[in-house]
Amino acid sequence: MTATIHHIDAKKAPSLSPMMNIVAADMNKVNAVILDRMQSQIPLIPELAGHLIAGGGKRMRPMLTLACAKLLDYSGERHHKLSAAVEFIHTATLLHDDVVDGSDMRRGKTAANLIFGNPAAVLVGDFLFSRAFELMVEDGSLKVLKILSHASAVIAEGEVNQLTAQRQVETSEDQYLDIIGAKTAALFAAACKIAAVVAERGDHDEQALDCYGRNLGIAFQLVDDAIDYVSTGEAMGKSVGDDFRDGKVTLPVILAYSRGDADERKFWHAAMIGNRISDEDLTHAISLLQKHNAIDDSLNRARLYGQRAIDALCHYPDGQAKSALIEAVEFAIARSY
Amino acid sequence: MTATIHHIDAKKAPSLSPMMNIVAADMNKVNAVILDRMQSQIPLIPELAGHLIAGGGKRMRPMLTLACAKLLDYSGERHHKLSAAVEFIHTATLLHDDVVDGSDMRRGKTAANLIFGNPAAVLVGDFLFSRAFELMVEDGSLKVLKILSHASAVIAEGEVNQLTAQRQVETSEDQYLDIIGAKTAALFAAACKIAAVVAERGDHDEQALDCYGRNLGIAFQLVDDAIDYVSTGEAMGKSVGDDFRDGKVTLPVILAYSRGDADERKFWHAAMIGNRISDEDLTHAISLLQKHNAIDDSLNRARLYGQRAIDALCHYPDGQAKSALIEAVEFAIARSY
Repeated sequence: MTATIHHIDAKKAPSLSPMMNIVAADMNKVNAVILDRMQSQIPLIPELAGHLIAGGGKRMRPMLTLACAKLLDYSGERHHKLSAAVEFIHTATLLHDDVVDGSDMRRGKTAANLIFGNPAAVLVGDFLFSRAFELMVEDGSLKVLKILSHASAVIAEGEVNQLTAQRQVETSEDQYLDIIGAKTAALFAAACKIAAVVAERGDHDEQALDCYGRNLGIAFQLVDDAIDYVSTGEAMGKSVGDDFRDGKVTLPVILAYSRGDADERKFWHAAMIGNRISDEDLTHAISLLQKHNAIDDSLNRARLYGQRAIDALCHYPDGQAKSALIEAVEFAIARSY
Repeated sequence: MTATIHHIDAKKAPSLSPMMNIVAADMNKVNAVILDRMQSQIPLIPELAGHLIAGGGKRMRPMLTLACAKLLDYSGERHHKLSAAVEFIHTATLLHDDVVDGSDMRRGKTAANLIFGNPAAVLVGDFLFSRAFELMVEDGSLKVLKILSHASAVIAEGEVNQLTAQRQVETSEDQYLDIIGAKTAALFAAACKIAAVVAERGDHDEQALDCYGRNLGIAFQLVDDAIDYVSTGEAMGKSVGDDFRDGKVTLPVILAYSRGDADERKFWHAAMIGNRISDEDLTHAISLLQKHNAIDDSLNRARLYGQRAIDALCHYPDGQAKSALIEAVEFAIARSY
């Protein structure tokens, strides 16, 4: 085991390609499982699921399972079904999220709930969620089932917590971190951890990969929430300012609100309860975020968690898989530039 | 093993009391699990779940697991957690159903989605569903996990199928039976079947109890769909004519439509696509159902499935548990009177 120290390099333009390359053959098998298991005699199910699943997305979570398995030199096939299960859980939560948020766009396409209606989006989400558990049962590991059923419960708790915090401009950074730790990082952590389970490594590897995934997930969501205010709809696959209009109190808003004066706080209050949702209001909001370095500091927080993710890999020997996992963290953060 | 033949007795007024009595002690333990496991640090979760769970309901499905376990002389405790899991799955589907249907009432109270909003109802449903799987994982039987994850996928398929059939007045009786077999009977069947698994009986008992539960579930839903047109809101815990107003093509409508003349069919067509939803239209619909014996014949179908449920118990010795399970079928059917 080497202990080379890796620091996030802000200068290079990192990409997911190294990770995609090392898992390409495995990912083809995962995609085959996904395609096979989203089928149903009820045509609306593959139609709606296909809109979202076949429609793209980076397959970040299943890719992490596969890459972590590579890191551990796992040479079996169990992770194909389990990666598909992870992606189904993720897709189910996306479908339900879009219903909850009333989203217009997802992955650069019209959100499924707008095309097929909220009822179908809710029910197909339920179907994919059940299918995920069927896949895990077929694999037969109670430990994996435990990790992913727990993660699923935590995700739902995080989503409800987010709902409770919605339009509450006084949400604290701690509560915000709890929310993204649950709604996003829990599944990243579980996706990585199950690789150690199928590779039959001990607690140490399970914890290291859980730590990697959790911190990457937090960094990932921090960046997502920051670029909601800076990115164009095209780059992100959804509209700019969605969170603003939905009254979602994310870290940029939390920072700008705490750092702002009385007038600014009044603005944020009005905006978050939904009384300031025009394009001019969004422009004003962005100027306040810039004034208080709220975007940059959110990205600085993301870098901190990213560094923790990278440090979680310290005890693994250098190699393709480790480099790819490190670059995935750098990519997650660099999406902001 | 005796082979006494039991026929449904239309004259007596059957009740669930015998079943409730034999499982009372077990049900207290199940209720304790339910109360304990619907908790969360996020207050909205127990608040919303409690509205529905603590708010009543017959606990029909967990009661069936317990009563079937009694039938098999099972003396362990595993069925307490698993019955709670079954109730959580059921509650999750109710929450999602109410969002899908836009229901006003459930179990005699305002539906959770109207009080807490659709987003919360969707997400707390997801939470309870995940919790159900956590409970099953704690029990540790992959066979039970397989039965209930499969049932969950089938339920979701049935719900999507129902959505597809909504407002389609030409839905066939076969498609209707597929829908209720999936959305209702699958969980009844699974609830009964898992009793045979925990009691470590063989395939024969699993199949017999699955058959009992499935046919009881179909009878139960047939009666539900029939009394939607005859019951008062108070007796049913929801409004009369809900299915009519929602354009749900249930068996009474299927029969009245097939047996009706051109004018009547025109009426049903208009009604199911949502152009005839006044109280007068409902009154006219009910008169057409009566004219064609559509309610009575739906109940006759229910009796047929009820008889099949009872016959599935033929090979079990007479005793309290068997009598209670038989009377539960009679109760399910007699709700119409």
